[in-house]
Amino acid sequence: MGGTQRLVVVGGDAAGMSAASQARRLKGPAELEIVAFERSHFTSYSACGIPYWIGGGVPRRDDLIARSPEEHRARGIDLRMRTEVVELDLGGQRVRSRDLESGAEAWTGFDQLVLATGARPLRPRLPGIGAAGVHGVQTLDDGQRLLDTLERTAGRRAVVVGAGYIGVEMAEALVERGYEVTVLHRGEQPMATLDPDMGGLVHSAMNAMGIVTVAGAEVTRVLTDEEGRARGVATAKGEEYPADVVVLGIGVEPRTALARAAGLPLGTSGGLLTDLAMRVRGYENVWAGGDCVEVLDLVAGRDRYVPLGTHANKHGQVIGSGVGGGYATFPGVVGTAVSKVCSLEIARTGLREKDALAVGLRFVTSTIVSTNTAGYYPGAEPMTVKMMAERRTGRLLGVQIVGGAGAAKRVDIAAVALTAGMTVEQVAALDLGYAPPFSPVWDPVQVAARKAVTAVRAAGV
Amino acid sequence: MGGTQRLVVVGGDAAGMSAASQARRLKGPAELEIVAFERSHFTSYSACGIPYWIGGGVPRRDDLIARSPEEHRARGIDLRMRTEVVELDLGGQRVRSRDLESGAEAWTGFDQLVLATGARPLRPRLPGIGAAGVHGVQTLDDGQRLLDTLERTAGRRAVVVGAGYIGVEMAEALVERGYEVTVLHRGEQPMATLDPDMGGLVHSAMNAMGIVTVAGAEVTRVLTDEEGRARGVATAKGEEYPADVVVLGIGVEPRTALARAAGLPLGTSGGLLTDLAMRVRGYENVWAGGDCVEVLDLVAGRDRYVPLGTHANKHGQVIGSGVGGGYATFPGVVGTAVSKVCSLEIARTGLREKDALAVGLRFVTSTIVSTNTAGYYPGAEPMTVKMMAERRTGRLLGVQIVGGAGAAKRVDIAAVALTAGMTVEQVAALDLGYAPPFSPVWDPVQVAARKAVTAVRAAGV
Repeated sequence: MGGTQRLVVVGGDAAGMSAASQARRLKGPAELEIVAFERSHFTSYSACGIPYWIGGGVPRRDDLIARSPEEHRARGIDLRMRTEVVELDLGGQRVRSRDLESGAEAWTGFDQLVLATGARPLRPRLPGIGAAGVHGVQTLDDGQRLLDTLERTAGRRAVVVGAGYIGVEMAEALVERGYEVTVLHRGEQPMATLDPDMGGLVHSAMNAMGIVTVAGAEVTRVLTDEEGRARGVATAKGEEYPADVVVLGIGVEPRTALARAAGLPLGTSGGLLTDLAMRVRGYENVWAGGDCVEVLDLVAGRDRYVPLGTHANKHGQVIGSGVGGGYATFPGVVGTAVSKVCSLEIARTGLREKDALAVGLRFVTSTIVSTNTAGYYPGAEPMTVKMMAERRTGRLLGVQIVGGAGAAKRVDIAAVALTAGMTVEQVAALDLGYAPPFSPVWDPVQVAARKAVTAVRAAGV
Repeated sequence: MGGTQRLVVVGGDAAGMSAASQARRLKGPAELEIVAFERSHFTSYSACGIPYWIGGGVPRRDDLIARSPEEHRARGIDLRMRTEVVELDLGGQRVRSRDLESGAEAWTGFDQLVLATGARPLRPRLPGIGAAGVHGVQTLDDGQRLLDTLERTAGRRAVVVGAGYIGVEMAEALVERGYEVTVLHRGEQPMATLDPDMGGLVHSAMNAMGIVTVAGAEVTRVLTDEEGRARGVATAKGEEYPADVVVLGIGVEPRTALARAAGLPLGTSGGLLTDLAMRVRGYENVWAGGDCVEVLDLVAGRDRYVPLGTHANKHGQVIGSGVGGGYATFPGVVGTAVSKVCSLEIARTGLREKDALAVGLRFVTSTIVSTNTAGYYPGAEPMTVKMMAERRTGRLLGVQIVGGAGAAKRVDIAAVALTAGMTVEQVAALDLGYAPPFSPVWDPVQVAARKAVTAVRAAGV
């Protein structure tokens, strides 16, 4: 025992570098050497901010970088950029890395290992998917390539494939840049993270903003011109959508090939499984966090894949505390997510109807339309709130909100109430902030809760 | 038993008419006769909206009226306007009322009685306080009189006495109308509902908006001209502040003279004391709600006077359910209040430092400055969050927020967490809505919570 221990961190974005920074706060270099490997050119940046950089609201790429490699090094972290870890030798407590510039490989031993390998974009294997003018928006490099294409392209027709968070945010970004935007999505409604009735509100609002949405669209091929550049996409129904640029916004999956090869436990989504302190299950000295892990869904009572920057940062904080000899846990998530498309705010937390059915919960729902401010306050905008409660117990199970300013963050009321296990009757009685510029006298979430209370009673036992 | 029972409601604003409406929903006229007495010309209006009507944002007085006397009557409520109840005969189960137009008096019997007599503005007995040009803003009639004065007055100097919610909202309203506004207040800082350090931020922001604030100002006299019109105010320090209009924004007290005369139980503030179903303590058939009652402060563990429209509406709902044969309770408040002065949002929930000391709680505090959106998102505005946690246990005790757009309603996160009895460590782990347009990756409330966790640990046991 004694002497300097070494922490190796694989992946230098939110989870990995938060873990490294927190561990460094707790232990100085004499106690803990920290080596971090990052494949790309960047550390600690906000991937969630990329749509706003593309849209032009955020002027510079570097605005999205929270902390540069130099800043990390100045805090005593041995950060190796453009270096990819290609093998984990857990028995030997070492990792093999490759310098992506020189190709040189080396083994590095560890006492503690943090896996923060993140996610990778889903890219369907379709004819033409690799053509010029087809772009993902997962990394800063992706974003820069898309911006280069937009600058070089005279045409103004954009097709976005996918209508989840990335899809609708990219639709907004392209509208901001003056494109005619068509969004193709497979489901019945955009925002499949909402129930279809609430997704329908997003659909209508997007159409009113001039964004064309096409439901049930299975893209089968990217059409290319003689030079091999994308000129549109074709769907399974045989329809063709011309495009000067194609943006893929179809989600991500955990990047866990290394973990799988090393025999680490993975969940149904392929994400790493950890305990509450973010240790990989069954491993005393291997930790994992961020977009490569599954997390406990506190409402559904099972693990789920929820890649989100805010969770990644929390994971890093928890891991860094543990590695640094402290104590912290990540108790789980309730499934909160917020987004917007132009002026329409979109939020959800807890379970959708199909999630509840999938885990055996019986429920009632209530949907109400209210306003973000007192109805008479100038500029009041409509807000639709859907609430789900468990039958018999009245326990809150989920909330979805679509509406004007203030709709998105209102979901936090429900997120806290879900975490606390409150009933809809308790939600209806909460002491929430009221003043005419901020809320009707009954907050819209409470109007929905009152209606849910009635629905619970009507449903009986 | 059997036959029609009679419910008498004293006071026709939020609590009274909500109670009447809810009772009517549950019981038809054959079962329950409802008689409601209201002194003024209006029912069910938003007193909280008056500053925005004065400021011009809300164009018409009637926009503030949620339901007119005619609408109530159409729902089977025998509503007697301009009729004041002047005596309660609880033993005889009857009330004596006076028609304020004719002076005629009459007794009306009841089976159930609801007291919703509201609040009355504090009006210090000072020389000149009754002069023309001195205005309260408690009722619609008050608001109309103030608007009439503003229209008749050429001068552009306004003095607002008091810097609580009404005071700062009226300062904003008068700024909107082009007045030079001076706010005189007795305390160290404006917004005494905040701790002085947070009130200091309001002070600075108001000054930056061109509003003059004067601390430690005890108004002793309204100065009048030869015609008896207000021309300014004088303070105990001998200073004089010229004014073309004087607005009193110094709070309210429960209007409970009738209740006191009838021997009903009152708290230290003079507000009626009720049980959780909003029955007056010790009385099976007398209910009370709204600005004439005290409510249980769930954090302090004692009754407190918190006049607020949102509570009044909830009380009415609970009383109406009880009177109508249903069951509901009002569990209490955590002390949430939000406001704004021009673009500055102000929010609080839970206890201030002095409240905690007064009830024997030992605590630590943390104060942080963050932003309302991701720091790089266009238009990001600063937000200061102060959090208080109990020593040793880390239980959340209170939160105060001052900042730009989104600051006010963020306090709801803490309001729910307080209700649930969460620790600051639990608050730091909450799954709150994150996307760059809505929050930094750590919500400001959670940044404060993390710092509070550290403070709790540092304070030891």
